[in-house]
Amino acid sequence: MIGTVSRTAEALLGQDRFLILTHRRPDGDTTGSAGALCLALRKLGKTAYTAPNHGVTRRYSSHIEPYYPPEDFAPGCIVAVDCAAPDMLPSEMAQYAERVDVVIDHHGSNPGFGRVNLVGGHYAACAEIICEVIEAMGVELDMDIARGIYVGASTDTGCFKFSNTTSNTHLVAAKCLDAGVDGGEINRALFETKSRARYEIERILFGSMAFYHEGKVAVALIRLEDRRRTGADWDDLDAIAGIPRQIEGVEVGLTFTELESGETKVSVRTTKEVDAAAICMQVGGGGHLRAAGATLPCASAEAIQRMLDATEKVYRGEA
Amino acid sequence: MIGTVSRTAEALLGQDRFLILTHRRPDGDTTGSAGALCLALRKLGKTAYTAPNHGVTRRYSSHIEPYYPPEDFAPGCIVAVDCAAPDMLPSEMAQYAERVDVVIDHHGSNPGFGRVNLVGGHYAACAEIICEVIEAMGVELDMDIARGIYVGASTDTGCFKFSNTTSNTHLVAAKCLDAGVDGGEINRALFETKSRARYEIERILFGSMAFYHEGKVAVALIRLEDRRRTGADWDDLDAIAGIPRQIEGVEVGLTFTELESGETKVSVRTTKEVDAAAICMQVGGGGHLRAAGATLPCASAEAIQRMLDATEKVYRGEA
Repeated sequence: MIGTVSRTAEALLGQDRFLILTHRRPDGDTTGSAGALCLALRKLGKTAYTAPNHGVTRRYSSHIEPYYPPEDFAPGCIVAVDCAAPDMLPSEMAQYAERVDVVIDHHGSNPGFGRVNLVGGHYAACAEIICEVIEAMGVELDMDIARGIYVGASTDTGCFKFSNTTSNTHLVAAKCLDAGVDGGEINRALFETKSRARYEIERILFGSMAFYHEGKVAVALIRLEDRRRTGADWDDLDAIAGIPRQIEGVEVGLTFTELESGETKVSVRTTKEVDAAAICMQVGGGGHLRAAGATLPCASAEAIQRMLDATEKVYRGEA
Repeated sequence: MIGTVSRTAEALLGQDRFLILTHRRPDGDTTGSAGALCLALRKLGKTAYTAPNHGVTRRYSSHIEPYYPPEDFAPGCIVAVDCAAPDMLPSEMAQYAERVDVVIDHHGSNPGFGRVNLVGGHYAACAEIICEVIEAMGVELDMDIARGIYVGASTDTGCFKFSNTTSNTHLVAAKCLDAGVDGGEINRALFETKSRARYEIERILFGSMAFYHEGKVAVALIRLEDRRRTGADWDDLDAIAGIPRQIEGVEVGLTFTELESGETKVSVRTTKEVDAAAICMQVGGGGHLRAAGATLPCASAEAIQRMLDATEKVYRGEA
């Protein structure tokens, strides 16, 4: 069933004993959406929990960890938020993949794997849709609910900076601030604080960056020993691939990360002049027009050479 | 006279031949506000220009440069936007300081140096007030007007990230996006693009950073030869002082810049634990609680030692 906001709100109002699922490698939108919905359902007197997600990092754990269920909890209604497909659920939630009751999501590609599916592909964040559902259930945004919504909207738009931000994103943010959310404090923690490991990684990235094709192509390398020495985890490496492209004149940023397996991961970020996916498809990877990636079965030196060749081919119009 | 939005709109509607003044070292709020107001007045059939501001950088010049007046222009009504005091006007506008008709500003400290003064100290950006004035004059926001307003609101709030952002800031941004502004493209240029010189300066800053007091104090140094070699101008150095404080655990970021005069400039940024002004006042500087600065009449090595001593005193409660 294709859900409208009001139908979805009605479906939720008719149920109890909720378990809310988040996607793997959880970000601020899936955790913020889950936490906000959980609190809103509880405010209606319902029993609601968020499913344990072992991949959650310290940055977003406060949205879901306090609401993990007791071991013997038997859910009556399963809701998935910000999950584009069943295989986006972490392994510990796979048992629920076939029995999701309500899907609330903003990925246009969502096949609608729930019984009720509220999918709004034009929303920047799932949290914006959650906000509408909460209001349609008659729950007023309080500061704790609004915090989850704000974090979802803010993180999925790079703090309202990216082109996916719509006027609705700003209207939702305005509501959250009116509900008492301290946006400045949240954003300082999310966007303005680097862990010491992250700082060390950026220092290495800046130091290692090399330029090709008259400065149009920037190459950065994070060695395995760099990660070991700095203790950087994937949280620390988040969005690091965007850095080379930020430099004026750079059209293609290639960020290489050596993996424990001996393989080399590459993240490609481009400006509108160059097709990132076309570069990555030559080495078995893929992705979007401006953001793509691949994992190459070779050491970093060879990976760099192969990716420079692949980039060259796209520039020459041969790929 | 203390202006309300409607009185100010009325005062403007009764005048013609406008010259709009911006402040020295112009930022996105003063230029965006000036450009938006100029276009709105022209839309009403009036003659309006923005006063030439020689300090404008390439980043913001498109808001005012196209609207510079012909040489023989004799203004009938002078409006100052985002100017906290007459001495904030650049020298080339000093001739108008005593004859400002309308002041529109968001600095609470503004003494009201115009005949009509619309000062809203609780607004994050002057552009938010300009938006209200434009609407009160009966002018609909078109894309070009909205672009100036959006840039003003966005730049003065760190792209809606800082704690000065209010729900009104978001509502204004929503209106601008609805008017067709490409926020993603604007923000990419303003916040996501580093000049090659800026990149080189950051590389040096990252490489030179040293930590004291168990990582609570971070010291970074930009040498005169670094600026010469990279060709970095003040635009490239903008907000660089905020970088050391971004590192987790750092409570005091001290950024030193060697000046041509042989003196050394220091910018101090602190978290809420430490009073930045108290550090700087010991060496003849000053500023705010979390952002202060000073110029020391000595070479950088001595300046670093003196500032570390001053910081130590604040930690020990002796200053």
